[in-house]
Amino acid sequence: MFENKNTDSTSISTLGEFGLIEHITKHFEITKNSTIKGVGDDSAVLDYKDKNTLVTTDILVEGVNFDLSYMPLKHLGYKSVMMSLSDIYAMNGTANQILVTIAISNRFPLEAVEELYSGIQLACEKYSIDMVGGDTSSSNKGLIISITAIGEVEKGEQIYRSGAKQGDLLVVTGDLGAAYLGLQVLEREKQVFQVNPQSQPDLEKYSYLVERHLKPEARKDISKLLKDMGVKPTSMIDISDGLSSEIIHLGRQSGVGCSVYEDKLPLDPQVISTCEEFELNSTTIALSGGDDFELLFTVSQDDFDKIKGNPHISVIGHMTDKSNGYNLITRADQSIPLTAQGWDATLKKEKE
Amino acid sequence: MFENKNTDSTSISTLGEFGLIEHITKHFEITKNSTIKGVGDDSAVLDYKDKNTLVTTDILVEGVNFDLSYMPLKHLGYKSVMMSLSDIYAMNGTANQILVTIAISNRFPLEAVEELYSGIQLACEKYSIDMVGGDTSSSNKGLIISITAIGEVEKGEQIYRSGAKQGDLLVVTGDLGAAYLGLQVLEREKQVFQVNPQSQPDLEKYSYLVERHLKPEARKDISKLLKDMGVKPTSMIDISDGLSSEIIHLGRQSGVGCSVYEDKLPLDPQVISTCEEFELNSTTIALSGGDDFELLFTVSQDDFDKIKGNPHISVIGHMTDKSNGYNLITRADQSIPLTAQGWDATLKKEKE
Repeated sequence: MFENKNTDSTSISTLGEFGLIEHITKHFEITKNSTIKGVGDDSAVLDYKDKNTLVTTDILVEGVNFDLSYMPLKHLGYKSVMMSLSDIYAMNGTANQILVTIAISNRFPLEAVEELYSGIQLACEKYSIDMVGGDTSSSNKGLIISITAIGEVEKGEQIYRSGAKQGDLLVVTGDLGAAYLGLQVLEREKQVFQVNPQSQPDLEKYSYLVERHLKPEARKDISKLLKDMGVKPTSMIDISDGLSSEIIHLGRQSGVGCSVYEDKLPLDPQVISTCEEFELNSTTIALSGGDDFELLFTVSQDDFDKIKGNPHISVIGHMTDKSNGYNLITRADQSIPLTAQGWDATLKKEKE
Repeated sequence: MFENKNTDSTSISTLGEFGLIEHITKHFEITKNSTIKGVGDDSAVLDYKDKNTLVTTDILVEGVNFDLSYMPLKHLGYKSVMMSLSDIYAMNGTANQILVTIAISNRFPLEAVEELYSGIQLACEKYSIDMVGGDTSSSNKGLIISITAIGEVEKGEQIYRSGAKQGDLLVVTGDLGAAYLGLQVLEREKQVFQVNPQSQPDLEKYSYLVERHLKPEARKDISKLLKDMGVKPTSMIDISDGLSSEIIHLGRQSGVGCSVYEDKLPLDPQVISTCEEFELNSTTIALSGGDDFELLFTVSQDDFDKIKGNPHISVIGHMTDKSNGYNLITRADQSIPLTAQGWDATLKKEKE
């Protein structure tokens, strides 16, 4: 289903590096006033006038951060842009430009690179982003993609991780755990496919989960939503590394503790039913699943009336004294310490 | 000689990603006024006031762009920063910040990462650069390092590749070919070492070449030098990918041709003597060796009196009508077309 059936393949070596760059960048259009010079010189030239400039970068490594057997290249391109934009949005900023760097082995024909860049281009069009540069290299093994995103924020309007105060409400956008479950569904289908290549997976009832994994959307809308509500968060962070670890980050950098309520965690019905089917604890998935391109922020209690009932956001807890630590308050009213599980600390064993 | 003899090793997995980032970034200091927020949030926040912002990125892949058997990690860190800064200087800009991204396999202990970052830190101190962010990942194979550099330029003072005019003088900074020959010397020593591990290489007479390969310096000084001379180049480009290919780039983007004079190419005496020893043509090495972190630029003929005799720069040719193409004028007064050899188009075969 997710395999590229295109059998025409062109070796990248026929183009060379400069030919490759020209080939893959020619379809990108420059649309932002802040882009003075994009692709084609030693560096991009940007004009951010009286705004502050935001810069962030992320790397994705094949076999570590993604598996091409169920992540089509176009989706990978799209998702890698989302990952980077999400960090700009988490500063209350507007994303404007990206630099795209890839390292690829000779396993990939030109058509594969085109697929990857078609996803990047779709993301650029949808989110109004100029692709203004990057780099390419060959790799000895697999595909590596690194995206640098550049954005802007009015001076003083950036929101750090460090501004949460005791008593502030903890708020999350969207819902949690779906992307992780989408990955579990795809991994199961891959195993079924390996045993029986004739199998036709029926992903209908997991459609939201699979979409959240394969085509996540960064929360470009939240900055404006909050402004329209007249609310300025006291702190904000992106939670694609997992809710639990990011709550701890936010709390530590702000010097406060946090209580999160299990019954407040926003879960899509497909998350609940699929957790039952897979015999997984939905709270664990929501806290530690990761890959949800949502934002976590804190607001003063005084703003509660402004935010309550909004379908895009959920109040899931409140900030406490630092000595309280970081705890989940369960449905049975028990307090359980949260743990950071944002990263698999066990490095992959190198295959030499 | 270049092996890391340190046998104490600590697994990176004992730290986890956030511990690793904290560990390697804690020695970096923020010194630039334009850095509002560095490492530790979703993105860096910069204030470029009324200047234009320059952004560039480069990637280095182990086994493709470097070989750790003769490139110590500290030098690799330093060199990777130089590579990125050079692109900012090639725009006539000032470099201010970098983002550092690495992907590493479990082959590397923490001490190796510390070595790499010590070189990055040294470069930051020497060139007055703030390290303001980045990303880390594990890799299935080897080390990958990607640096994004951010800089500034007064509005209208950026110099593009596209401004060269017919009749302009072609000028290069420093001297050519030494870095490539340094690599040849190190590769020969590696082979000797593999045959006879007791051999003690005497690199004394190649000291400049080896230094140019292992510890190149980006031309931070050129922008000020030109300003002090009262000269503004009409075009400029970094030549770390090789002089010949970059002459062609500059000419194509400017819509002009170029004649380069063999007898004008600046060569260090060690380049000349080592080319003789290795039976290599020094002109070929100067044109195609690459890895020289020098700048190539064009100036109006009217500026000749201002630049002549300066020891940092050499006039090597002049721009011609486009129809003339790109040619080397030999010592025998023959005209030979230049070819772009800036990149090895043959992708490395993937070892699965």
